[in-house]
Amino acid sequence: MAVPPSTYPRRILPLFLGLFQGALLLFFALFVTYDEPSAQAEDTSSVAHQVYSTFPFFQDIQVMLVVGLGLLLTFLPRYGFSALTHNFLLLNFSMQWALVLQGLLHHFHHGQIHLDLHKLLISEFAAVTVLISVGAILGRASPCQLLAMATCEIPIYLASEWVIVSCLGVLDVGGTITIHVFSCYFGLGVSKALFRATQQPLHPKETPTPSSDLMSLVGTLILWVFWPSFVAVLCQPGDAQHRAILNTLLAMSAGAISTVVASSLLERDGKLSLGHLQNGSLAGGVAIGVVADMALPPVAALALGSLSAVACVLGFRFLTPLLGRKLTLHDQCGIHNLHGLPGVLGAAASVVAVLVASTDTSGSQPSQLPPAGGNASEVVEGHWGDRGVGRQALCQAAGLAVASGASLLAGLLTGALLRLPCLAQPPERLCFDDSLYFKIQDQTESSGPDSSAEEGALALKEHI
Amino acid sequence: MAVPPSTYPRRILPLFLGLFQGALLLFFALFVTYDEPSAQAEDTSSVAHQVYSTFPFFQDIQVMLVVGLGLLLTFLPRYGFSALTHNFLLLNFSMQWALVLQGLLHHFHHGQIHLDLHKLLISEFAAVTVLISVGAILGRASPCQLLAMATCEIPIYLASEWVIVSCLGVLDVGGTITIHVFSCYFGLGVSKALFRATQQPLHPKETPTPSSDLMSLVGTLILWVFWPSFVAVLCQPGDAQHRAILNTLLAMSAGAISTVVASSLLERDGKLSLGHLQNGSLAGGVAIGVVADMALPPVAALALGSLSAVACVLGFRFLTPLLGRKLTLHDQCGIHNLHGLPGVLGAAASVVAVLVASTDTSGSQPSQLPPAGGNASEVVEGHWGDRGVGRQALCQAAGLAVASGASLLAGLLTGALLRLPCLAQPPERLCFDDSLYFKIQDQTESSGPDSSAEEGALALKEHI
Amino acid sequence: MAVPPSTYPRRILPLFLGLFQGALLLFFALFVTYDEPSAQAEDTSSVAHQVYSTFPFFQDIQVMLVVGLGLLLTFLPRYGFSALTHNFLLLNFSMQWALVLQGLLHHFHHGQIHLDLHKLLISEFAAVTVLISVGAILGRASPCQLLAMATCEIPIYLASEWVIVSCLGVLDVGGTITIHVFSCYFGLGVSKALFRATQQPLHPKETPTPSSDLMSLVGTLILWVFWPSFVAVLCQPGDAQHRAILNTLLAMSAGAISTVVASSLLERDGKLSLGHLQNGSLAGGVAIGVVADMALPPVAALALGSLSAVACVLGFRFLTPLLGRKLTLHDQCGIHNLHGLPGVLGAAASVVAVLVASTDTSGSQPSQLPPAGGNASEVVEGHWGDRGVGRQALCQAAGLAVASGASLLAGLLTGALLRLPCLAQPPERLCFDDSLYFKIQDQTESSGPDSSAEEGALALKEHI
Repeated sequence: MAVPPSTYPRRILPLFLGLFQGALLLFFALFVTYDEPSAQAEDTSSVAHQVYSTFPFFQDIQVMLVVGLGLLLTFLPRYGFSALTHNFLLLNFSMQWALVLQGLLHHFHHGQIHLDLHKLLISEFAAVTVLISVGAILGRASPCQLLAMATCEIPIYLASEWVIVSCLGVLDVGGTITIHVFSCYFGLGVSKALFRATQQPLHPKETPTPSSDLMSLVGTLILWVFWPSFVAVLCQPGDAQHRAILNTLLAMSAGAISTVVASSLLERDGKLSLGHLQNGSLAGGVAIGVVADMALPPVAALALGSLSAVACVLGFRFLTPLLGRKLTLHDQCGIHNLHGLPGVLGAAASVVAVLVASTDTSGSQPSQLPPAGGNASEVVEGHWGDRGVGRQALCQAAGLAVASGASLLAGLLTGALLRLPCLAQPPERLCFDDSLYFKIQDQTESSGPDSSAEEGALALKEHI
Repeated sequence: MAVPPSTYPRRILPLFLGLFQGALLLFFALFVTYDEPSAQAEDTSSVAHQVYSTFPFFQDIQVMLVVGLGLLLTFLPRYGFSALTHNFLLLNFSMQWALVLQGLLHHFHHGQIHLDLHKLLISEFAAVTVLISVGAILGRASPCQLLAMATCEIPIYLASEWVIVSCLGVLDVGGTITIHVFSCYFGLGVSKALFRATQQPLHPKETPTPSSDLMSLVGTLILWVFWPSFVAVLCQPGDAQHRAILNTLLAMSAGAISTVVASSLLERDGKLSLGHLQNGSLAGGVAIGVVADMALPPVAALALGSLSAVACVLGFRFLTPLLGRKLTLHDQCGIHNLHGLPGVLGAAASVVAVLVASTDTSGSQPSQLPPAGGNASEVVEGHWGDRGVGRQALCQAAGLAVASGASLLAGLLTGALLRLPCLAQPPERLCFDDSLYFKIQDQTESSGPDSSAEEGALALKEHI
Repeated sequence: MAVPPSTYPRRILPLFLGLFQGALLLFFALFVTYDEPSAQAEDTSSVAHQVYSTFPFFQDIQVMLVVGLGLLLTFLPRYGFSALTHNFLLLNFSMQWALVLQGLLHHFHHGQIHLDLHKLLISEFAAVTVLISVGAILGRASPCQLLAMATCEIPIYLASEWVIVSCLGVLDVGGTITIHVFSCYFGLGVSKALFRATQQPLHPKETPTPSSDLMSLVGTLILWVFWPSFVAVLCQPGDAQHRAILNTLLAMSAGAISTVVASSLLERDGKLSLGHLQNGSLAGGVAIGVVADMALPPVAALALGSLSAVACVLGFRFLTPLLGRKLTLHDQCGIHNLHGLPGVLGAAASVVAVLVASTDTSGSQPSQLPPAGGNASEVVEGHWGDRGVGRQALCQAAGLAVASGASLLAGLLTGALLRLPCLAQPPERLCFDDSLYFKIQDQTESSGPDSSAEEGALALKEHI
């Protein structure tokens, strides 16, 4: 054979990425430009102010996604390189892809797309959905599959976000519904369709070691620290942003303590589970996003943070095994516990908040922020106070339904697509192993004799 | 027996934390609210400015405490999870507890407490004292003991800070006296009373491994980088804050080099000790806090940084073993060398600075900043230039005496309290071991056959 | 003998550093002061604004250099402490040394040097050159040699930067030519002169392990995240800075994907090489520096980022082995691939950019920023639009020639100096081993029986 079967599918990845980069260059060459330099000194100062007010938040979010989330995913002891690198690659690919699509969809004025930091930020938010969704299939999917998934998920996210924010006028400044709930159910759909009814047995390489768990815990702590920046970056400067930061801090702090309480009560001998700590500590941040900038009393943030953390830990303890047994649903990182359950809780809280806020704080208007997309200001302009409180509450619930239902369906379709043989899904016994994707120099330390690179190539050959 | 003895004390932790969270929710529901949204556009811009000027500092400090300090404490090879998690838990618990107490003590106007970022920051500073103090007993105390210690230390700190800053009018913008000296002697007092006269033999699990030392060194570097934010966050914007940043940078840079010099001279063959590097590099930051914003020449910052680093290294080499032998004083992390000695040096420097500044910089007033607590501005209003230079110098010395003496006494009492059997102090041979508090999945890698979880439970049973 | 030979050269390090600190203190005491406190409220607000606009960038750069670069260098499994500590020590030493020299050279007005954050930043940039250059000889040089190298490199850098920026008027806001190209060829010169014609065989301790590669990859990701701050910190606030941030983000994002493409195509079986990822992902940031603030279309940033990454990976695959064989040139970290090739590409791009910008964007002036040194504003004042486009393009090329040629020559001379016996170059079989410089407590884990500390001392004795 001219092309040895073991190398053939390997070429898909660089081919696909190379073509994408070429197309991106073409697209940028034709359509994308920067804003004209501002002539007035006043404008210069305004641009400078924009940089100082946005850029630190932007950097915080980059640290979260690249370092924090990357480390959090390294809990699989022989899959650290893959976790970090695939996360990094997907972030860049999805961000660029979202930039292209958003350029085409929204910003096509006068044949030119004016790029600025805010547009990059919006694209980064779109990329987050992909990074969350892949958690459901971490370790069992090839990079090609992950990129194919990203290619499908980004346009679906943009459509879903347009429906939720622009059409329904849902308030969701921290992306609880639009990002977390959406990406969770999308990922679960992909997982279900990809692995179908096969009950996945516990893989020997799936168990974390103390050193991989420690790295993962450090990732959690980095995410925990910078989470307020993620929630507050798109808030209106001033009181709303201040309140969003405070609410997130309170929710995450309460969530951290409640995680310890819940984990300690559920485990034998009152010991703590590292999986609970790694995820539960962050649940409060997921839930608070949708109400962070609303005029709620601080106690609501504390309560929501506590509840979400408890829900997350309970989910790990009872729901994930149950879903695995009953629905043969595979959720490697437990994204349903970290993003699904707290997201639903947050959405429910936003319904209550809308209903209560209108009766409670008679004088002070609830916040009228441009929501996460930032491009729906026209819709919200005549803010929801005028739309009727009941209708706004209904819209929040409808947003949740769209984010979970539509994404689950889309995820199922995407997952079916990922079964294409050319995407080179790894065989079961080569899962969770870096040596399939990386040139590991010191075989003796990273992998036993039963999983050498030679064997990997061999097995892949057999598989194809 | 209905309650098996091995599980009984395990329930104390979730019970205590759960009750605390409940009480916190109640307290917040009754008394805490956010500031009213600002109606004027001017106010909005002022709030926005406050966020941009404080929030980046706040995030830096969070990184220091959660990631930097957490990693620094992971030098015990089998105690990494405990070090990171207990540090994280104590930070959140102490911060919330300080928020409650400060609310009750200082901010009880009109029946409502108005929460803002500055109040959270002040509570975070209070929590720092706990994180430092526990360094003295790291690895030998149960989480229940640590929480009990935090419960005692926070009110004592608030009282001590009130005396030092509000009554004595001590200038201490970076918390050298109020935080570092206080928490060091409090921690030593706790250690003395808790372990009494028993000479602690070297525990086999106490010795760092290269990989745990490396993580710890990374923690030091993170702390080193962000230290200027810690010192400067409460300074008055403008020259004073600029000077505080520069002074801290100079002191830490000089301290880093002096640490290498001192460690290299003291160790056999001129090799460097990792313990010296991990601590000495930070000593300059501890000492500079109290004089950071004063109108000193830059050379003073360099000299103080160098001196503190040398004192810290000498302390590790000579003083800690001496205290261990003569006073049977146990100081696991060497907090006396990192916080005690440099803190005393810094306090002495502040006395000199006050005396010199008045004669030296005739025209330019020394800084008249609201000190660390931020709530003593009325006292300092008629700034210390009017109080007489001698009196201010005396006050600085008196502040040092209060911070060290009162805290030592309070620490001794607290330590005696920690001996209560219900707080479940671990037996000697189960110290320094994560498997007592965490469900470790891969026993073979983390712990030898002599320290399995089963044995741990058994030993605890025997102990109680 | 009175002085045992094994300890003698060990004393050089503390002696040299101690003397340097003493001289620094003297210099600061005599000449350095802070700015006079600003009397007007307006000035205070301007200083405060300066702090808020510069300090977050400064902190980002500190994280990059201390944590990110430090971790990147820990890929040698038994050399992690040395990599982190020497990097940290050299940063502090070089920064202080640059502060002294810059004070003497540029800022000697009225007998007093006024220190501010900007001057510290400029000194930090000078220190970066040292940190890059030592990458060529990492693991084979003693700390004394590294300090001697820093002592030579800083004044040469300042001279070269003065020629390039002030005399030639080269535009290079991100230090591509002045920092990256300069330090690369300086380091290669040192390596050539230090190791001469001896072909270095592969050392058994030179091979990364999975855990050391993982730490190194985390370092890369930290550098990747904060790189925009490094490029943009010295830009003029407003449009130019905004554009520099965007260009850097685009270049680094494209570079990340192109690295995966190139590495995957070059390696057997399409696997990724960790060395490629660790370096290639950053190449885009190196190249973009010189054109980051110019009025280029965004596509140029993408293309430059992609090209640099590909060049970097090709360099690792083909050029480094070739240089090793043909020129017996030793380049431990591959600095020629990460800093040399992308730097040259960036310089070439700047020539094109200057030529194109003048014809293309007829109306809008190309950026007229004070370049990296910040002290050449007088020269650039009558900006390069007046100097003629051709001449400016020529100057960019001349700057590249100076930065590479002069630095190579200076590096060769410095390398010859480093062969002085008193600088204690370690013998071959003790290279890449922490136990030569650090008191490693747990010998069993860190080093095999063939490299114990005793043997190290013995071997050093033999060597001297």
